[in-house]
Amino acid sequence: MGVRIMTRKIAVLGAGSWGSVLAKVLVDNGHQVNLWTNMQAQADELNNQHTNEHYMPGLVYPEALVTTTDLKAAVDGADAVLFVVPTKVIRLVSQQLVAVLKELKQKPLLIHASKGLELGSHKRISEVILEEVPADLHGGMVVLSGPSHAEEVAKQDITLITAASEDLVAAKLVQELFMNNYLRIYTNQDVIGVETGAAFKNVIAIGAGALHGLGYGDDAKAALMTRGLAEISRLGVAFGADPLTFIGLSGVGDLIVTCTSVHSRNWRAGDQLGQGKSLQEVIDNMGMVIEGINTCKAAYELAQAKGIEMPITEAIYHVLYENKDVKDEIATLMKREGKTELA
Amino acid sequence: MGVRIMTRKIAVLGAGSWGSVLAKVLVDNGHQVNLWTNMQAQADELNNQHTNEHYMPGLVYPEALVTTTDLKAAVDGADAVLFVVPTKVIRLVSQQLVAVLKELKQKPLLIHASKGLELGSHKRISEVILEEVPADLHGGMVVLSGPSHAEEVAKQDITLITAASEDLVAAKLVQELFMNNYLRIYTNQDVIGVETGAAFKNVIAIGAGALHGLGYGDDAKAALMTRGLAEISRLGVAFGADPLTFIGLSGVGDLIVTCTSVHSRNWRAGDQLGQGKSLQEVIDNMGMVIEGINTCKAAYELAQAKGIEMPITEAIYHVLYENKDVKDEIATLMKREGKTELA
Repeated sequence: MGVRIMTRKIAVLGAGSWGSVLAKVLVDNGHQVNLWTNMQAQADELNNQHTNEHYMPGLVYPEALVTTTDLKAAVDGADAVLFVVPTKVIRLVSQQLVAVLKELKQKPLLIHASKGLELGSHKRISEVILEEVPADLHGGMVVLSGPSHAEEVAKQDITLITAASEDLVAAKLVQELFMNNYLRIYTNQDVIGVETGAAFKNVIAIGAGALHGLGYGDDAKAALMTRGLAEISRLGVAFGADPLTFIGLSGVGDLIVTCTSVHSRNWRAGDQLGQGKSLQEVIDNMGMVIEGINTCKAAYELAQAKGIEMPITEAIYHVLYENKDVKDEIATLMKREGKTELA
Repeated sequence: MGVRIMTRKIAVLGAGSWGSVLAKVLVDNGHQVNLWTNMQAQADELNNQHTNEHYMPGLVYPEALVTTTDLKAAVDGADAVLFVVPTKVIRLVSQQLVAVLKELKQKPLLIHASKGLELGSHKRISEVILEEVPADLHGGMVVLSGPSHAEEVAKQDITLITAASEDLVAAKLVQELFMNNYLRIYTNQDVIGVETGAAFKNVIAIGAGALHGLGYGDDAKAALMTRGLAEISRLGVAFGADPLTFIGLSGVGDLIVTCTSVHSRNWRAGDQLGQGKSLQEVIDNMGMVIEGINTCKAAYELAQAKGIEMPITEAIYHVLYENKDVKDEIATLMKREGKTELA
């Protein structure tokens, strides 16, 4: 990107695949980065061997990257704090951050690159963070989202993602922090659209996997993704999103990557359901959280509450939570009366 | 679909893969179908062996399907005439149809399922047909488009497509004609959006193939499809399309199928360009028309004339028509200044 105008100090919270790779990007771009993890062994490995074998096997991290288990040390002096922790600990880490920021008397820009909804409350991640961090302790909130495999960003393959904030100046600052010759950032002011798209796409990915498991072809998968996009955008719009955001990187872009990649856990779960395995077998086989299973319940409940028609999400809900047969659900979808496309 | 309300008489013009399979669908749905081809040997094969080996190897067509080389006989008594001929003969066939309709004193509904723009004039297919067929010789114009491999529809895999017409009653009639338990039709009133999406997506497919040929990963391909969709929708909107149509089956749906399928000729052409072959080598290897190469020139010229920013189309144009290096063009794309997503 030519001459870097200003070096910033950034704390990255969460040293999984995506967190550690985003920290590497920031170091590549000349920033001072403190990476925070709650696992001492991982911090030692990153500081001494410059590796993170469990999450990013084979990757060598830059020596300038500093990893710590001390949240206060990580955040001290930071211009920006980037959350990349699992959805289920967003609220807890936000509370811990508040204590540290009060002590340090700092007001950093907040950024998050997590995807999903809070379990139970169905709240978006930026909502949860801003419920915990009061306005006098931060300088704005920006969401990073889009079609991004950590492995591809790590090897400097080309990736394009979105930086979303109601505050365009904050979004542009994040764009400047991350952008380089392999990672391109687009700003967007529709936070609701970006966060709901990122969460709900995992439900559609389960459906895409199920069609694959059942042996359906490219037409059926493209149709599912398209009509899936239509229904998740309907739900997003009911929460105040701009429908055009769903045509963007955090919408259709992320949907494409998630629904066409065998690396997606949600897709793989759907594939196994399509092959006739039970939900319990699928969960046991995976041994990890399948985000879309929870998000399907959230989307289903939100759609019922708002009176939004989401036939694909409902069909997946019936399979996941009411033990219905996948093939019957597909037949029911195909037997619906003829519709108009943009309703 | 339960009880069929009314049997219609339909003439299908063009017995290639898609035309012959759509004719089969209409017969499956209980309609009387005359399929027209200008090749007597093909008509004989379809009438006697009920096969169409050159276009649909292995498929057995229903015996009720009648194929003829006599356009007047095909159209006689038809409630609807479906065009599925190559773009380059749309105008000629429309003129031939006019002569027949005048003689028969008929006013059928017109439907077309072709994709592309007229060479030179850059006109949409429905524009060309309606320039030739005067209003007193037809009962409306409906466009069928969407993510559809003829092979998948032939084997009754699930496919969803769009029937677009300014006249919703006409679109609903076409929906009723084609819809069944394996083919689902959505109506749409945005003809311009449906036709421009179907044409311009082939340009983006060349780009997706090129990224694959160069060895780029899923992130880069999803980004290209997303930003490609953004720029073809900008161009469509300049011609009067609704941007939301590009989120539909004829937009993103068809884009996904075309950009992710190795069966797409446009994708394969891009793949070879990415591997370093020259345009002439690619054309020689393919031995068939690569629609996206012509459409790229059309889109480039239309964008220049309308002042629309289409960086991906411009990059592909530079590679195809100005002998520029694919890698240099990608580097230039990545070095553009930071943008906002929805501009």
